[in-house]
Amino acid sequence: MGDAIKSPRVRYREQVREEIKAHAWAQVAATGASALSLNAIAKQMGISGPALYRYFRNRDELITELVLDAYRDLSDTCRAAATPGDPPETRLAAMASALRRWALAAPHRYLLIYGTPVPGYAAPPEATTLAAGIMTLLLDAYAEADAEAGTAAGGGPASDAATALDDHLAAHRRWAADHPAPASALRRALTFWTRLHGVISLEVAGHFTGMGFDPALLYATESDSVGASGEVRSR
Amino acid sequence: MGDAIKSPRVRYREQVREEIKAHAWAQVAATGASALSLNAIAKQMGISGPALYRYFRNRDELITELVLDAYRDLSDTCRAAATPGDPPETRLAAMASALRRWALAAPHRYLLIYGTPVPGYAAPPEATTLAAGIMTLLLDAYAEADAEAGTAAGGGPASDAATALDDHLAAHRRWAADHPAPASALRRALTFWTRLHGVISLEVAGHFTGMGFDPALLYATESDSVGASGEVRSR
Repeated sequence: MGDAIKSPRVRYREQVREEIKAHAWAQVAATGASALSLNAIAKQMGISGPALYRYFRNRDELITELVLDAYRDLSDTCRAAATPGDPPETRLAAMASALRRWALAAPHRYLLIYGTPVPGYAAPPEATTLAAGIMTLLLDAYAEADAEAGTAAGGGPASDAATALDDHLAAHRRWAADHPAPASALRRALTFWTRLHGVISLEVAGHFTGMGFDPALLYATESDSVGASGEVRSR
Repeated sequence: MGDAIKSPRVRYREQVREEIKAHAWAQVAATGASALSLNAIAKQMGISGPALYRYFRNRDELITELVLDAYRDLSDTCRAAATPGDPPETRLAAMASALRRWALAAPHRYLLIYGTPVPGYAAPPEATTLAAGIMTLLLDAYAEADAEAGTAAGGGPASDAATALDDHLAAHRRWAADHPAPASALRRALTFWTRLHGVISLEVAGHFTGMGFDPALLYATESDSVGASGEVRSR
């Protein structure tokens, strides 16, 4: 479309950076992000260490590229799932399904952004921005569901603890970037995240392996508990 | 009590192993378990690599000791929290509070057993046994709560997805080691684990940092949602 034609030099540089990132993802899967070695990647690619450092200045810059690629891809995935005009419950259910598929397709990618932090590494502000964009999709859906229900009644009567959390969130909504959603919608967006992450992260880390039950059904139950009711899809 | 007196040689060996483990925990916190280096520990202790290998044959044996220590400590913590004779809800609430305190006291210890798996490392069967012991404490409490309620009504009416999961779990209870708990108790024990892990794991990984709300209130809400209702304790 509007893309300027790139010089061969620029295109070559992008191609090498992509190749380095592909090796880096393989390393993250094989040895973990904290053991990522630029020199090992250089060796695999048949180039010198200093040559590779012309593409990525250090380990952290390379990890940042992987982290941002992961967040961008997850953000695109959620956005594609939440079809505008669909009822809020349908959008939430589609996002929940898409999230699990995305995680199972590449567990090390999910765990790079939501698993154990890489010691000594801090994700850049852009990652927070991308994560906030995903949260906005959830807040939009929950606010719309609440508005349709007439009151903030979605999800049934709130417990005392939920009411206390709602009171707190009403006054602590910095993370929601001034979203006009009622407090109960803020709470439900947070529990969408934590409940689904709870199941997914244990599944991709292998904790359900050998337990003998179908995690898809547990995930469907937890999706349902946060108002994201869709088809139950067993693996 | 009945412990035989240990020879100085045996005591010295245990003392050195404990010292090695302390260095290993520090490394896990600083660089991650996948970057654990026995040679680096030997250097820190002023002994040779081969000397250290007389105490732990390899990296995996050392990680296994850390993993088992973590599971044993968590198991003891849960057992101490679940006072026999207390009502089931009280025991569940005490376990939920103890679990979060345990995780926040040493995030790298929590993440070693429940975070991103160490590539190439598989936990030993004893870890599964210890985890199953914790699950039994939960199943006991939920089964007792169900029995008290007369029917399996605890936690309010089940959704279609929850009913489908219950039907599945009734026939897939290998992980529950023949526990006589009704299916709904099996489901609630699983969601105790996944919901509380969902909040704790994101908190210890730093995902709530900068969001500006109190995770203790979110945790209390999620504890409440699985019938573990206790005092709301803000940090």
